[in-house]
Amino acid sequence: MKRIVLFGTGNLATHLFEAYKDSLNFKIVQVFNHDLKSLKKFKSEIATTTNLSEIIQADIYLLALKDDVLEDFSKKITDSGALVVHTSGAVRMNVLQNFGRSGVFYPLQTFSKSKEVEFTTIPICVEANSASDKEVIFKMASEISTKVFEISSEQRKSLHVAAVFVSNFVNLLYTEGEIICKQNNVPFKILHPLIQETAGKILNISPREAQTGPAKRKDQQVITAHLGMLSEEQKEIYSLLTKSIQNLHGEEL
Amino acid sequence: MKRIVLFGTGNLATHLFEAYKDSLNFKIVQVFNHDLKSLKKFKSEIATTTNLSEIIQADIYLLALKDDVLEDFSKKITDSGALVVHTSGAVRMNVLQNFGRSGVFYPLQTFSKSKEVEFTTIPICVEANSASDKEVIFKMASEISTKVFEISSEQRKSLHVAAVFVSNFVNLLYTEGEIICKQNNVPFKILHPLIQETAGKILNISPREAQTGPAKRKDQQVITAHLGMLSEEQKEIYSLLTKSIQNLHGEEL
Repeated sequence: MKRIVLFGTGNLATHLFEAYKDSLNFKIVQVFNHDLKSLKKFKSEIATTTNLSEIIQADIYLLALKDDVLEDFSKKITDSGALVVHTSGAVRMNVLQNFGRSGVFYPLQTFSKSKEVEFTTIPICVEANSASDKEVIFKMASEISTKVFEISSEQRKSLHVAAVFVSNFVNLLYTEGEIICKQNNVPFKILHPLIQETAGKILNISPREAQTGPAKRKDQQVITAHLGMLSEEQKEIYSLLTKSIQNLHGEEL
Repeated sequence: MKRIVLFGTGNLATHLFEAYKDSLNFKIVQVFNHDLKSLKKFKSEIATTTNLSEIIQADIYLLALKDDVLEDFSKKITDSGALVVHTSGAVRMNVLQNFGRSGVFYPLQTFSKSKEVEFTTIPICVEANSASDKEVIFKMASEISTKVFEISSEQRKSLHVAAVFVSNFVNLLYTEGEIICKQNNVPFKILHPLIQETAGKILNISPREAQTGPAKRKDQQVITAHLGMLSEEQKEIYSLLTKSIQNLHGEEL
């Protein structure tokens, strides 16, 4: 059994803590965070500490920390021979180069505190600076997910930016849709099936092929009418995305 | 039993034709289109014509036509006393005001020829210029869907623009994600679970509440790194949507 110290108490750290509760081969033995309050929810179940000098000897140090503190924070950890792994999509593995053994364990999913997560189908991208440690992280990921991929730092960076488009930006567009519905006294839930169908479609056909709508049809009458109904900010988004659809599909018309 | 003449042979017309095949109460008895070739697939199953003077007497004339031809085309149809109904989200009911009886039957979904459609869960927005015809269209919609809503022309217009945001524009972002993956030799399918989760999440929590990512966290380091990996057009989209997320969530930080 591999022993894990978990650094961080955010959304991902919390979900990972839950996910590894049932594992027989990987066990979280301690949770670290600077902020005592954030450790409260772990305290009844596991050893916790706010003090780096109290970190337990373990096989794996799992850093589920914000991207922008990762590098600086990792410099404060002593290299005890443990495999040090971060969970970031955007940060290169070599920010951990001070450690003899390092790697990446990046679950490609959006984590909210308010929603439970089923890890089984979440892709986990793994990387390590040695073949044997790649094996360790691969096994660790396979404990909770059936979709484990070996992905280089370069590939991971591109996946991360692609994820921002297909998830964070998509969610913004859902929010704009909800705002428009609210302003016009239409229940947003009427749009739920359309949202699910749009997402479901691309499991079978390429999104490029799935494109529909007034922008693709170059239906200028509808486009002009739509622009007349929007706020300045929504207009900007509408115009830019319409132009992009037309650039992508222009040659097909 | 109500007899329907279907005008149009596009994606929606084709799917509606399939959907009403099993109905005992509403029966499509003829399909019209200007273009003889497009009628080919209907010919073996039903009467077809390219000639408006050959239109059969029926209870309902269902105009599943492109938004931009709807008004002009409807002026060429003789008012035979039939209920004349269009299927557009963007066009007001009163483009059909030449007819004594008119209405709207707008299925709020994205239709591709290449993908089969299950109408049962597709919301259908209905409107009519009399209570009795509203009843007829409501019944007709309820034959194929369990989600029928009475929606005014004004509300429908706003639903339609919201649908462009949550479906057409969302699909563009999927396409950009796929392009980024291809350019970096990463299989796009690694993003499939994230896409499904992002869409599934908003069935339970408001998209505003579900927002995550570097834009919301104001993680400028990641944002700058991402911008460096994108094409000019992608950069424009990235910057604008990041700004919008920050405007929406600025006060929460």
